[in-house]
Amino acid sequence: MTQLEQAKKNKITAQIRKIAHQEGHSPQSIREKIAQGKIVIPYNKNHRPKKPYGIGQGLSTKVNANIGTSADFFQIKKELQKLKAALSAGAHTIMDLSTGGNITQTRQAILAHCPVPLGTVPIYQAAVQAVKNFGSIDNMTVKDIFRVIIEAAQDGVDFFTLHCGVTIESLNRLKQEKRITDIVSRGGAILAEWISKNRQENPLYKYFDEILDICRRFDVTISLGDGMRPGSIADATDRSQIQELILLGELAQQAQAKGVQVMIEGPGHVPIDQIQTNVQLEKRLCHNAPFYVLGPLVTDVAPGYDHITAAIGGALAGAWGADFLCYVTRSEHLHLPTAEDVKEGVIVTRIAAHAADLAKGIDRAWDWDKKISQARRQRNWNKQIALAIDQERPKKMRQRFKSNIRDACSMCSEYCSLKIMDRLNKT
Amino acid sequence: MTQLEQAKKNKITAQIRKIAHQEGHSPQSIREKIAQGKIVIPYNKNHRPKKPYGIGQGLSTKVNANIGTSADFFQIKKELQKLKAALSAGAHTIMDLSTGGNITQTRQAILAHCPVPLGTVPIYQAAVQAVKNFGSIDNMTVKDIFRVIIEAAQDGVDFFTLHCGVTIESLNRLKQEKRITDIVSRGGAILAEWISKNRQENPLYKYFDEILDICRRFDVTISLGDGMRPGSIADATDRSQIQELILLGELAQQAQAKGVQVMIEGPGHVPIDQIQTNVQLEKRLCHNAPFYVLGPLVTDVAPGYDHITAAIGGALAGAWGADFLCYVTRSEHLHLPTAEDVKEGVIVTRIAAHAADLAKGIDRAWDWDKKISQARRQRNWNKQIALAIDQERPKKMRQRFKSNIRDACSMCSEYCSLKIMDRLNKT
Repeated sequence: MTQLEQAKKNKITAQIRKIAHQEGHSPQSIREKIAQGKIVIPYNKNHRPKKPYGIGQGLSTKVNANIGTSADFFQIKKELQKLKAALSAGAHTIMDLSTGGNITQTRQAILAHCPVPLGTVPIYQAAVQAVKNFGSIDNMTVKDIFRVIIEAAQDGVDFFTLHCGVTIESLNRLKQEKRITDIVSRGGAILAEWISKNRQENPLYKYFDEILDICRRFDVTISLGDGMRPGSIADATDRSQIQELILLGELAQQAQAKGVQVMIEGPGHVPIDQIQTNVQLEKRLCHNAPFYVLGPLVTDVAPGYDHITAAIGGALAGAWGADFLCYVTRSEHLHLPTAEDVKEGVIVTRIAAHAADLAKGIDRAWDWDKKISQARRQRNWNKQIALAIDQERPKKMRQRFKSNIRDACSMCSEYCSLKIMDRLNKT
Repeated sequence: MTQLEQAKKNKITAQIRKIAHQEGHSPQSIREKIAQGKIVIPYNKNHRPKKPYGIGQGLSTKVNANIGTSADFFQIKKELQKLKAALSAGAHTIMDLSTGGNITQTRQAILAHCPVPLGTVPIYQAAVQAVKNFGSIDNMTVKDIFRVIIEAAQDGVDFFTLHCGVTIESLNRLKQEKRITDIVSRGGAILAEWISKNRQENPLYKYFDEILDICRRFDVTISLGDGMRPGSIADATDRSQIQELILLGELAQQAQAKGVQVMIEGPGHVPIDQIQTNVQLEKRLCHNAPFYVLGPLVTDVAPGYDHITAAIGGALAGAWGADFLCYVTRSEHLHLPTAEDVKEGVIVTRIAAHAADLAKGIDRAWDWDKKISQARRQRNWNKQIALAIDQERPKKMRQRFKSNIRDACSMCSEYCSLKIMDRLNKT
């Protein structure tokens, strides 16, 4: 039985208990929300991640890191370095988005070293194999797609991104919309080409029920992908995006009815003033299924700094109720990320998630800020750094430009406001 | 006559004309808002910055960069390097916050090389000189403070931060509040100590009218400082902060009545869900005087990354209506910033300001995003980089990890969604 099926039958699993403890909630309340489809625990029976996490309403905001090869860079060793960097920076989940080299071997190597839930996008591998074996994406068969899905589920993948909402209907709406950046989802574009060239419905939509059978068997959580996500500010929240979201909401209901856990993926590039609308629409149209956002990036003009444009959007989306933030690295729009990019991306996205948790009123988040601020008040830099979200960088920085005054920093030196106030409070 | 006095008399100055052209508004509408106190143009008659900027309602969000010496690092040469870094990164204004070395010489050297408005905090120099000459801050006299104000105004400083709201009244409220981080404003702490030890009212409050005379003479814009700004998430939006804001609103009215331009400084450390409240309160309590925020930092836990915690808060504050963002560098809470920190700080804060401008619905901001996204759609990386908010970093990054495919990047290579969609659209 899946986590969802057990929750519906009033059973509290070991994973629910673990997560309840982690988050400071009662197991009963977590179970109830899983049964309602508001929380998921990605946990494939063939992987059994040592560190499972709950994603959804009332829980702390989680962070995913994408790694994986491309046709240009495909050393498995490098991907394992990125995995390590992501884990030590505190990523809650990993996605392997490989499209280069030996994709099966890469996935299996990552799974073997991954104590947290792992996600993949099966359509990538199906498309890459179709190009390799038959010369083009449109020659990919339904059988090829299912073969990859079954293999990945058997290998132990904990959640799948499936772009089920890229359908004949949503593609027609896309054409009429006349976007600036059309489709920017890799999976979305692959399926758009396949659908258009074969004049057939998206197999992930048409055979959704069969996919549910596979996911149910291994308890793979489905992450309904947003193939229509906007790739530029001007395209945000348009008809094709919202049309797809309506479809995803329907599919989510179908999955939950069959005992399969499900979450919904969201944009993308969205201006700040449309982020609340995007979160509310997802929550309403998808009956409060957990919302998993990629960014959103709040402007298009900052290549090289998109970890920051995404952190701004992610913090805000989280504050409005998004449950799960996919990191974006500084290499977005430019190149495959390095291990260094991965590390920074995870830290920055954890900052956004934590800022969201403060806005969500999560007690443990508030306690953390109080503790570090008390250390700051005491001008105890060692304690402050020990409590920091990343210790390595502030430690180096402090050592490099020390003040001549022991209990101050070189910005204010003896005119440190906290030092002045301490002196005043002592008189 | 000051810009405000002229605007009130229906006169359109050369600076109004320049700014109207810059922002794509009519000179008449800018003039009207200056007369109403909703826009300021910091422009000291003795400096006459070549690049004046308007700050306030309806205009694009502006970015300030703080530079200046401390008691630990006080080379004028280094400060001029930071000035250059800030200007080439696109800062709209500079503040010289020097508290070390020869403060007068540093200010004059910066002014000589500064084509944009320059701000200072006169109380810093008065306090440093008091410590040097009389051994302690409390020995600073009212005359000392006025001497610095007059000198700096004569030198050509375009705007002064004056912590006039740190009064006996607001300090009493602060004591009752029992904050975690007490006062974190350097100027605020200096004045708190002076007021408490001398048992006298804040001279910047008591003699505000005399200060107005000086500012009016040179047309120095007053930036009413928030000495009570919260230095931790737990202290945000508390009684002492709002008490001070009420006082600042009253003083702003007094300044405007006397023909002196004025803006209001804001926090600080504020959780995401309190940012809207902070902006609305400022706009209401200060009758829409321009709002100049320091961050706000949306969490306390990220030393080493506070350019990012501030960018999140700044973008959001700007989207809600803040007019002017003071950058925060990664060195905040750790050390005096380097030229490298300054550059990065300005770029990141400009990203936040631009994201806010998109939310504010500023047409030119939307045009910029459209243009870069069109270049992205065309997979024209040279054009994309030429249009980027910073060209240097993405250029280096793209060259370092190129794809084997000319018109793709190494993240997706031949599976670039835009490439697939182009192929599909051509069939």
